[in-house]
Amino acid sequence: MADATEPSKSALKKAEKAAKMAQAKAEKAAKQAANTSTVAVVGGKKVDDIIGITFKKSEHFAQWYQEVVLKAEMIEYYNEIAGFYILRPAAMYVWNVIRKWFQERIEHLGVEETSFPMFLSAKSLEKEKDHVEGFAPELAWVTKAGDKDLEVPVAVRPTSEAVMYPYYSKWIRSHRDLPLRLNQWNSVVRWEAKQTTPFLRAREFLWQEGHTAHMSEKLAEEEVFEILELYAGVYEQLLAVPVVRGKKTENEKFAGGYYTTTVEGYIPTNGRGIQGATSHCLGQNFSKMFDITVEDPNQKGQHMHVWQNSWGLSTRVIGVMVMIHGDDKGLVLPPRISKIQTILVPVGLTAKMTPEEKEAHLAKCESILDTLKKDCRDVRADIDTREGYTPAWKFNDWELKGVPLRLEFGPKDAAKDVVSFARRDTGEKGTIPLSELGTAIPALLEKIQQDMYDKADKAFREHRLVIKDWSKVVPALDARNVVLIPFCLDGKCEDRIKELTKSDEIVEGPDGRPAPSMGMKSLCIPLEQPEEPLAKGQKCLNPECTRDASTWTMFGRSY
Amino acid sequence: MADATEPSKSALKKAEKAAKMAQAKAEKAAKQAANTSTVAVVGGKKVDDIIGITFKKSEHFAQWYQEVVLKAEMIEYYNEIAGFYILRPAAMYVWNVIRKWFQERIEHLGVEETSFPMFLSAKSLEKEKDHVEGFAPELAWVTKAGDKDLEVPVAVRPTSEAVMYPYYSKWIRSHRDLPLRLNQWNSVVRWEAKQTTPFLRAREFLWQEGHTAHMSEKLAEEEVFEILELYAGVYEQLLAVPVVRGKKTENEKFAGGYYTTTVEGYIPTNGRGIQGATSHCLGQNFSKMFDITVEDPNQKGQHMHVWQNSWGLSTRVIGVMVMIHGDDKGLVLPPRISKIQTILVPVGLTAKMTPEEKEAHLAKCESILDTLKKDCRDVRADIDTREGYTPAWKFNDWELKGVPLRLEFGPKDAAKDVVSFARRDTGEKGTIPLSELGTAIPALLEKIQQDMYDKADKAFREHRLVIKDWSKVVPALDARNVVLIPFCLDGKCEDRIKELTKSDEIVEGPDGRPAPSMGMKSLCIPLEQPEEPLAKGQKCLNPECTRDASTWTMFGRSY
Repeated sequence: MADATEPSKSALKKAEKAAKMAQAKAEKAAKQAANTSTVAVVGGKKVDDIIGITFKKSEHFAQWYQEVVLKAEMIEYYNEIAGFYILRPAAMYVWNVIRKWFQERIEHLGVEETSFPMFLSAKSLEKEKDHVEGFAPELAWVTKAGDKDLEVPVAVRPTSEAVMYPYYSKWIRSHRDLPLRLNQWNSVVRWEAKQTTPFLRAREFLWQEGHTAHMSEKLAEEEVFEILELYAGVYEQLLAVPVVRGKKTENEKFAGGYYTTTVEGYIPTNGRGIQGATSHCLGQNFSKMFDITVEDPNQKGQHMHVWQNSWGLSTRVIGVMVMIHGDDKGLVLPPRISKIQTILVPVGLTAKMTPEEKEAHLAKCESILDTLKKDCRDVRADIDTREGYTPAWKFNDWELKGVPLRLEFGPKDAAKDVVSFARRDTGEKGTIPLSELGTAIPALLEKIQQDMYDKADKAFREHRLVIKDWSKVVPALDARNVVLIPFCLDGKCEDRIKELTKSDEIVEGPDGRPAPSMGMKSLCIPLEQPEEPLAKGQKCLNPECTRDASTWTMFGRSY
Repeated sequence: MADATEPSKSALKKAEKAAKMAQAKAEKAAKQAANTSTVAVVGGKKVDDIIGITFKKSEHFAQWYQEVVLKAEMIEYYNEIAGFYILRPAAMYVWNVIRKWFQERIEHLGVEETSFPMFLSAKSLEKEKDHVEGFAPELAWVTKAGDKDLEVPVAVRPTSEAVMYPYYSKWIRSHRDLPLRLNQWNSVVRWEAKQTTPFLRAREFLWQEGHTAHMSEKLAEEEVFEILELYAGVYEQLLAVPVVRGKKTENEKFAGGYYTTTVEGYIPTNGRGIQGATSHCLGQNFSKMFDITVEDPNQKGQHMHVWQNSWGLSTRVIGVMVMIHGDDKGLVLPPRISKIQTILVPVGLTAKMTPEEKEAHLAKCESILDTLKKDCRDVRADIDTREGYTPAWKFNDWELKGVPLRLEFGPKDAAKDVVSFARRDTGEKGTIPLSELGTAIPALLEKIQQDMYDKADKAFREHRLVIKDWSKVVPALDARNVVLIPFCLDGKCEDRIKELTKSDEIVEGPDGRPAPSMGMKSLCIPLEQPEEPLAKGQKCLNPECTRDASTWTMFGRSY
């Protein structure tokens, strides 16, 4: 299976085949949805009517995920058209934190912002053969405006190489115009035939796409890895998600590109790998097709084609974060991307208290909130004074929404000059003296952030197995591992490995429906290879392959 | 920009002659360009090959405008598809300043961010009759995905009322869910048949669209005017553009809405009014069609329909700013939205100087830049050390790009411990002691901002004529005024006024082609009415109308 951000060549044929059935199915579903109301149904249940998360993460992972993103109000299903989702404020907040973080850093690198049209002429798209083959099956075509047919239909961009590069050819006249580094934040449309999943695979998704041109392969390469490191930073520093940096194999690289680098994540619950974000060197493939040249500084009068990169990070990151950190109570948000980092819930207001006593207690709560806002300026704190709900109901509600730290304050706490706290990630409880709030809360939030990362990192490390014995591969996959194996890097060998590692075991597929275990595909060639070097003369692990292994390559079942 | 070949005068005349057929040519060129290269043609001229602005603002306003936005690198024509434009970094910078300013303020009001799909089902659109009639002629229809026809075509959103409101119906269950206030930043598509113009009328444009729901008409109304005031702030405080706040007449209000408020600008060069941004109260029209109700707090068990608003501000603001402030040398940017506020150009580096002397002088220039960055932290300063260009060439280049303040520093300045400056808006020159840079530069930039506003405000005030004599209306329009007249507010009367004020005089139309003077339409009913109250029994100014006037209404020829 290819991922939502890049279709690979090998995935194409299968996708096209599956397209016929899935398309019919999806359209049927869309039709039904359009006729009925907008009650969310997950795994056959009308989950809207039930409070809290009803599916268990360990038992029905796909349904659990859908229920969590729905009930935590990150996502709404767009019933009008299948495969589209509404991003609600809880999701947009996370995306905007990421956007701001990344934007500041690429600005610092000298990348400027641009906005190209959303439509693409077929003519431009067709200039790069592999590129058009990669994207043609998923293009949405506008053929009519008002009640008139367009003379020439136009496609909604699935990515903007072919939209932008005719202008790179115009704007780049001399080496003084290099590097040209532009980025845009927009949405793109890929009319996937496959089952869609919120954030991970949608027919429209938000992303940023950077497109740059350089004087040399070396300068292009430097940027490719600078950007890859920023993508890793989004996962590791903001989302508390560990990733493996690597290069894609030829089979899995960007359609029309030269090479693709990637950050790869891992979902412990089902042992699948998931592509995080990709930074491509396009080489001179597009500059040759779109005639983007400058005078060669080494040969006066001669022209040379520029070196290009493109790189993209999408809202998929949010889905990966939810899958890794969430639990049976709902979302678990890392503090750095949580809109509310700590929520204060007044407790212990009994029926025996007079209205004055209640008011006095609530006033104390408000003063704690004030202290938090004043003493820890960077902490995003709020108070839940909603009437008509019990503290227990509020606890569940904030747990569902993933707020990292809950504070409770009741008369007993007041008597001791403390607040009680409960961590969302571990459930750990304790008290903090009121006098120490200003230092304790920020420190605790940072600890939660670090602990969440460490836990996920440990899980990934423990399930990334170096394997030199073919017979151990499928059992390792079945035990929810990804594997690092000696591999020859040949594309056909890779296809064969996928075939050979299919298993008859029926498991929950990535869409939640039972399916035979899929074969493994290559996730990446990790930049940081296993400590153990490849033995001299080490063969490719595929028992049918006679070639020498080139590198350790990470394979796994994947999204 | 490459060669400095000055156009001969005869070539200029030829070009002017060709301007009449500009439209046909431009479209033909656009078609050809899709096959060949991307050379920009404005008014029949290949303006790319000529340095500087070749059209005069006062003589060929439309062509001047197109040439300025092109050569200042705000816009590139998207030759692949007519009516679409590329927003380059110089434009995106301005848009992002506006976005940040506005976003902070609506967040403060409690508006949250969302992202709905770009596609719309015909079914949703059709729910509000006036709304669908208003937008249907401009809808872009996706009918195919890959090589398969969609069972049900989907339209690209022209605005998102019909995309969003089915979900408002789902999310709003009780008065606790109100107000619901969501905003999204996106692009919308309106496949205009009319001549397109960069920023002002494009088939795709960037904007924000806010959609909110309230308990009562009063609460909705409060927000409508809060937002309108923010829109006025974008124009007045950021873009130094004066606007008149007002209400639209029934003829000009939003399709399907209850009432529309607007900020209206004025282009002195041609005396046209231009709509700046609109904040609509939708009343209960949409909530009735989409069934958005809550329990009526005054009548238990009874349901009431919520009150809704929608409001939008688009990249049009940039075009209005360019038209008002620009001059024959190019763009003139107000300091608050200019990426570079002050550019330092080293001068006086003669051929007689030794390399060491030059280096020493450039080091001094760099230290001035450092001082600027340290002492005036909020000033965005840069230095132009490009080699191979004369200071004069650099002056022209920065003037073309609109940088508000140029600093020059040569050996003569160094001897006196001053920098020389030149204001972009007035051309005023002077010197500033080096020791005073830290205070003088920010003050001068603020003065430029204020002076630009004052100049535009004076022009608007002088050309907003209160007229009580019908015979003076057309001469006032011909003299580039907008007019405030007693008006009955009747829609048919408004249509008739448009007819009656058409003139046979041939002028440059809004698209640059000669056209008979258009009739005037109502721009708005200003919230701030003329000081002189309407006389008791004052009739509507239309000589054919027998009704009493209701208000002073602002009419004008317009975009």
